[in-house]
Amino acid sequence: MAAAEPTAHDLIAQHRPTLDQALEAIRTRAYWSPHPEHPKAYGENGSLDAAAGKAAFDALLNTRLDLGQPGTDDWVGEETSPYGIALGVTYPHADVDVLLPAMTAGQRAWREAGAEVRAVVCLEILKRIADRTHEFAHAVMHTSGQAFMMAFQAGGPHAQDRGLEAVAYAYAEQVRTPGTAEWSKPQGKRDPLAMTKTFTPVPRGVALLVGCNTFPTWNGYPGLFASLATGNAVLVKPHPRAVLPLALTVGVAREVLAAAGFDANLVALAAERPGEGIAKTLATRPEIKIIDYTGSASFGDWLEANARQAQVYTEKAGVNTVVVESTAHYKGMLANLAFSLSLYSGQMCTTPQNLLIPRDGIRTDEGPKTYDEVVADLARSVDGLLGDDARANALLGAIVNPDVKARLEAAAGLGEVALASREVANPEFPDAVVRTPVIVKLDGAKPDDEAAYMSECFGPVSFAVAVDSGADALALLRRTVRDKGAMTVGAYTTDPEFERDVEEVCLAEAAQLSLNLTGGVYVNQTAAFSDFHGSGGNPAANAALTDGAFVANRFRVVEVRRDA
Amino acid sequence: MAAAEPTAHDLIAQHRPTLDQALEAIRTRAYWSPHPEHPKAYGENGSLDAAAGKAAFDALLNTRLDLGQPGTDDWVGEETSPYGIALGVTYPHADVDVLLPAMTAGQRAWREAGAEVRAVVCLEILKRIADRTHEFAHAVMHTSGQAFMMAFQAGGPHAQDRGLEAVAYAYAEQVRTPGTAEWSKPQGKRDPLAMTKTFTPVPRGVALLVGCNTFPTWNGYPGLFASLATGNAVLVKPHPRAVLPLALTVGVAREVLAAAGFDANLVALAAERPGEGIAKTLATRPEIKIIDYTGSASFGDWLEANARQAQVYTEKAGVNTVVVESTAHYKGMLANLAFSLSLYSGQMCTTPQNLLIPRDGIRTDEGPKTYDEVVADLARSVDGLLGDDARANALLGAIVNPDVKARLEAAAGLGEVALASREVANPEFPDAVVRTPVIVKLDGAKPDDEAAYMSECFGPVSFAVAVDSGADALALLRRTVRDKGAMTVGAYTTDPEFERDVEEVCLAEAAQLSLNLTGGVYVNQTAAFSDFHGSGGNPAANAALTDGAFVANRFRVVEVRRDA
Repeated sequence: MAAAEPTAHDLIAQHRPTLDQALEAIRTRAYWSPHPEHPKAYGENGSLDAAAGKAAFDALLNTRLDLGQPGTDDWVGEETSPYGIALGVTYPHADVDVLLPAMTAGQRAWREAGAEVRAVVCLEILKRIADRTHEFAHAVMHTSGQAFMMAFQAGGPHAQDRGLEAVAYAYAEQVRTPGTAEWSKPQGKRDPLAMTKTFTPVPRGVALLVGCNTFPTWNGYPGLFASLATGNAVLVKPHPRAVLPLALTVGVAREVLAAAGFDANLVALAAERPGEGIAKTLATRPEIKIIDYTGSASFGDWLEANARQAQVYTEKAGVNTVVVESTAHYKGMLANLAFSLSLYSGQMCTTPQNLLIPRDGIRTDEGPKTYDEVVADLARSVDGLLGDDARANALLGAIVNPDVKARLEAAAGLGEVALASREVANPEFPDAVVRTPVIVKLDGAKPDDEAAYMSECFGPVSFAVAVDSGADALALLRRTVRDKGAMTVGAYTTDPEFERDVEEVCLAEAAQLSLNLTGGVYVNQTAAFSDFHGSGGNPAANAALTDGAFVANRFRVVEVRRDA
Repeated sequence: MAAAEPTAHDLIAQHRPTLDQALEAIRTRAYWSPHPEHPKAYGENGSLDAAAGKAAFDALLNTRLDLGQPGTDDWVGEETSPYGIALGVTYPHADVDVLLPAMTAGQRAWREAGAEVRAVVCLEILKRIADRTHEFAHAVMHTSGQAFMMAFQAGGPHAQDRGLEAVAYAYAEQVRTPGTAEWSKPQGKRDPLAMTKTFTPVPRGVALLVGCNTFPTWNGYPGLFASLATGNAVLVKPHPRAVLPLALTVGVAREVLAAAGFDANLVALAAERPGEGIAKTLATRPEIKIIDYTGSASFGDWLEANARQAQVYTEKAGVNTVVVESTAHYKGMLANLAFSLSLYSGQMCTTPQNLLIPRDGIRTDEGPKTYDEVVADLARSVDGLLGDDARANALLGAIVNPDVKARLEAAAGLGEVALASREVANPEFPDAVVRTPVIVKLDGAKPDDEAAYMSECFGPVSFAVAVDSGADALALLRRTVRDKGAMTVGAYTTDPEFERDVEEVCLAEAAQLSLNLTGGVYVNQTAAFSDFHGSGGNPAANAALTDGAFVANRFRVVEVRRDA
């Protein structure tokens, strides 16, 4: 270890206050973040500013990212940015029969370090990632297709927040049981029975993180840091189209682990050849004891059914609903919904898909509005929001892959189009596929339409579903969450009884509910330390980010007891 | 509700101090129990004394235990005590298509009661069970075959402790997230974004408890109370040979729930006809979202593989090992081991099976002892402990079923018998099958012997396995835990380095270790609030009693957020 590298003691001194703040934040769930959202906040105290971050990203292009991993038998990587750039970065391809054993070599020392040292090492990893937020922003942008500002915020500070939140939960869980206990049981007139007991959190083994295309860091960090902080090694299998952000993450983790005196191989990357499908192979390896996955329901279900040797945490797919029953702020509702439908071209697992609107219309502060009026006004709001191409590009980002584009194009054939999707030119990246969202009118009572609105149509597609009444909307909401799952539910109502009823549906079906959002918070956004992402209680996901259940089974506690 | 019945407010006033003590106990893991172990401690403050408890049990015999459950289509029950008495009690047989829907009717009110009220209702259930400890003791004795004092303690106060411990964990987990939060995010010069958020623990649905024959209450209460305290309904499916203790428990729970103004059907019994095998049917019903199971590895594995709609907590089977490397208290070691092998005829999931002893012998405070000497001395210790028939009966209890008797009889053919099992006459219950344990010598290096010592042989059978060295013992210990699982590991050593090595094996393989026990604490006993039962990290069990992971996924948290 170089003299300048921090010791575990240094790291505790440096990061314990942040850990304590995070522990307080998850307890109060008030607003908190140590990671600035504004790009201009970076450039001091060792962090890269915008120009340096861009330069660092550019320097990565067309290079080999050598992470120094054992068992590297090849170099792979064929990422092309949704903005049209071939990244040209190659990554180590692992012989897993060499890499996996190497990952277990350092586990004892990592376990023996204890929960606090593991937590502050994780915080140092996050700190070094945070310093490179500008560089990561470009990596996220050019793999997910997010617009720069979103890639910066969601891929940077918000992802780091989610990682830190997971570390805080992991730490809190491990220290719930004391390290030692003196146990003395009275025996009447005889001497008490006395035992000295030690309790040690022990890891499960190697954790596998299966990354996703759209939010490689945001969706990846909770599992990665929860597993690492609880003593496990972590093998990161990124989505083949979104390797770079997680490869950089692995690089930072390996650097910090080694600097702190631990085995760098506690974190490693498993990049793959096109079509290799190594997730399936890795997921059933006996060494793999934990899997975190974000992606399609079909592979998530496969993991749950087949990776029986592992704890499996999945975020799959759902059908998100917004119930529009009435509103006291019609314009605010329209603006809020328009933004939610447009952000990142609706390519979020939290984007609303089905807008349930009574066919007889709704009450608003601007008087009654018919179903047709509401849909037309919403279409106009989206149009207004995205009328300027520069603003549209900044909000929409690029379509992440051809499947999403195909679904978007097919959606127009599913019903009457209330708002047609249009192409937006991106002057900086002419090859980017940028599209505004489509809104299609469907009838909740027509079986043909049901096939459309009861399936997830991931991308910039939403359905304005005419329902018979508010009660009918609630029945459909309940059925949708129960059968298809939902990451988010939204509702607009001025009727206290209806509000209680929609809350009851969400409580009964375990769906996270946003009520009457008309300002700058959107149903598709959740804030770490305060909002849960998913509930883990409906088919969309079997875990929530982040709660006790997300961390408590990533380790076990071993007790050793002796006569005192 | 009758005027004399306690309100939720009364129950909080009455039980909150106990809950707080339990919360403190699981935090410090020091000794604590509110449930007296001594039979003479009962008889005041509404609890039944010995005579009243016996009379209450006798009054149950040859009666129909009508729990007032909906959907009762028949009356079933064919329990015969291992002591030879036909109990003659019949129980409701349920039409589950009627019973299961009825169990969900009261779930909303139970959810809305909140974590604290649910906890104190559970504590009231436990209090009324505790008052009837003498009655339950006979019920446990005459279903499990435990001797009276063990049935009293393990089936009474110790089981109640485990239930209370689960309630404390469940309560603590649910209140980790605040009920409400005010979230205010600064926006520079603009007004902050401000949200009001509520967080509500919601149950998963109906939990299924699949009870076991040997410890119906001790192994049943943790899951039952963890599920109930987190807002779920609980369907109790007892072992057909051990229905009565859990049926009485269900009766008390229904009585308390109704008295507190909740739906009695939140807890119900599913007794079955001989050979009906309803556990399989129930386990895959869509209403069943949680399963707790104690029993054979084969059915536990089946549940884990097939009850995919549920969270499954299993305690299965393992091969428990004691490593005998050296000792500073030879007599104490022999006495301690003799007791562990004899208690309840070794019919505990925690009883040691394999005693690994170096073939060259061990160092002791009485000089070196050869392998043969150690085994012979241990045999003599067991003989001495059980030489008096009255004492033998009080320790051994009865053989619980013919399978155990058959295994015991077959064990003598597996190798050289160091201690033969003998029949003990029970003057009070002449039909009881009472047997002392057998100790068989095996050679760790012989493949034929390995087939015996690497399988679980549940019952009063232990193997003195000759190993090449301490290091060989550790290698075998590691392999045994990894491949077969273990609820307990014991070790005797005076060598600090060997002690560290055995600890390391247990930490690496997630096994609970007792070191150098020579007094009144035995490897097969764990104390609630302090000791973990199982680790959940090796094949013997996928959960530990009780930790955060045991409760955290029995409920989910639903967030509702609004603009503030």
